[in-house]
Amino acid sequence: MRVVILGSAAGGGLPQWNCRCPICTLARSEPDRVRPRTQSSIAVSADGSDWLLINASPDIRQQLFDNAQMHPREGLRHSPIRAVLLTNGDVDHVAGLLTLREGQPYALYGTRGILDSVNANRVFDVMAEGVVERQAIGMDEPFEPLPGLTVTLFPVPGKVPLWLEDETMEIGAETETTVGALIEAGGRRLAYIPGCARVTDGLRRRIAGVDALLFDGTVLHDDDMIRAGVGTKTGWRMGHVPMRGENGSIDALAAVEIGHRIFVHINNTNPVLVEGSPERADVEAAGWTVAHDGLNLSL
Amino acid sequence: MRVVILGSAAGGGLPQWNCRCPICTLARSEPDRVRPRTQSSIAVSADGSDWLLINASPDIRQQLFDNAQMHPREGLRHSPIRAVLLTNGDVDHVAGLLTLREGQPYALYGTRGILDSVNANRVFDVMAEGVVERQAIGMDEPFEPLPGLTVTLFPVPGKVPLWLEDETMEIGAETETTVGALIEAGGRRLAYIPGCARVTDGLRRRIAGVDALLFDGTVLHDDDMIRAGVGTKTGWRMGHVPMRGENGSIDALAAVEIGHRIFVHINNTNPVLVEGSPERADVEAAGWTVAHDGLNLSL
Repeated sequence: MRVVILGSAAGGGLPQWNCRCPICTLARSEPDRVRPRTQSSIAVSADGSDWLLINASPDIRQQLFDNAQMHPREGLRHSPIRAVLLTNGDVDHVAGLLTLREGQPYALYGTRGILDSVNANRVFDVMAEGVVERQAIGMDEPFEPLPGLTVTLFPVPGKVPLWLEDETMEIGAETETTVGALIEAGGRRLAYIPGCARVTDGLRRRIAGVDALLFDGTVLHDDDMIRAGVGTKTGWRMGHVPMRGENGSIDALAAVEIGHRIFVHINNTNPVLVEGSPERADVEAAGWTVAHDGLNLSL
Repeated sequence: MRVVILGSAAGGGLPQWNCRCPICTLARSEPDRVRPRTQSSIAVSADGSDWLLINASPDIRQQLFDNAQMHPREGLRHSPIRAVLLTNGDVDHVAGLLTLREGQPYALYGTRGILDSVNANRVFDVMAEGVVERQAIGMDEPFEPLPGLTVTLFPVPGKVPLWLEDETMEIGAETETTVGALIEAGGRRLAYIPGCARVTDGLRRRIAGVDALLFDGTVLHDDDMIRAGVGTKTGWRMGHVPMRGENGSIDALAAVEIGHRIFVHINNTNPVLVEGSPERADVEAAGWTVAHDGLNLSL
């Protein structure tokens, strides 16, 4: 199985357009100290030729341009991306669908709830009917978006996207609004969970023994945004478990057998983004990799 | 008046994600022969400090990163972009609104029709109420989005966006779905018309005497897409007047007094994009500039 991390940042990317926090400032002025990163997306392939895109970030055009495996290869119009899967309806995971147009056929997968919330916006009609086939997938129902690649979705603690929040919203519910994906090819297994509000026993059982885990690295501590002075929301309020602190993912996953442990979906305020920082050293000492754009895995 | 062309390509950009036409192929392999270009957007300023963004392209994050004038300058959160204006509802002009979020206040201007078609999509609620103020502007009603900068909208022959097309659609109608903008500051005048299906007498009168015209350069000939083998749509069907051929814009505007004549919104199939090509030489000999990303004007 081949995996390409197209975008390793959380919503807003790094730098975020309107942010002057120390990390965004370094990303603009000293890219050796903080590598700029685009928003959350990966691509997975069984044969290195046809790819499943998981999540379509607003930066998708730049991401496909920057990664030669994603360039069209045949005829006048083509894409190696044959299928797209959404793990939630957040803007950083769906806005890129507006770029995946131009009459290019592919299959779009997601839970019924995620697909319905996207389809309710007429602007997504640019993915023309009869060209882009929407296919709703149930929990724990393995499907094969590409030959030789099997995907199973499972609910993880999360919340509805920001643009669907209302007073009835529940944080941490395990519904089909936020899912993880278990991907299998050639006997290798990858777990992709870019958003997760809490590590549960069920989650630990799900991912035990995977060859690689790409996991929600939005915040280091639950109060990252508050410490940085850029907001009042905690990680929990945004639906993201912190790496460290009480119930942090590093400790909560420490006893689970996992090949590679990699943080993705990293928010611009997370100090692990600074090369050589003590925070980076800490998570690396715990066995985790902090993803960057263009990171390739062969499992 | 200061003008920055943030993106000079039409919808899809250059290269387009799924296109292997000769021009897109050169944009990937030989950037000296075909410069890659992002999608249609400009920024205008009276003082060089605060900017009006006109159209929000899917590539906005990259565009703001690439142009230092657009970086935040004060406090922890800031943007020099204080106002945004839409000239139609095409995806290449509105998708970037999904990036201009994160609680940053600005004013969003457009015709009632354009704003309504955007607002009908709940995903744009990421521009939170009370943070991003929507303001509908009528035709021929000058308004001041920034101190010292006056804008007047006027209808141009066009069509509804692709995602709103239906059997009742009329091409070439002068309604409020496609507008041009006349921008004045310090006694200088800029006309910005990135989409226009036909040059009319009314249009010629509107723009007579401007210091610069940024005009629809989507196609060279009406049948560019057909010649390139990538589609069946004519320029007219897409709502864009060709540069050359019967009723082409170069001839139709030749007798109008205009300071700088600059083509923007250039489709990936347009041969003027190739540096040193006879088509580029032809339009330059006619007094036109083919825009590239990052082109700055001081008027």
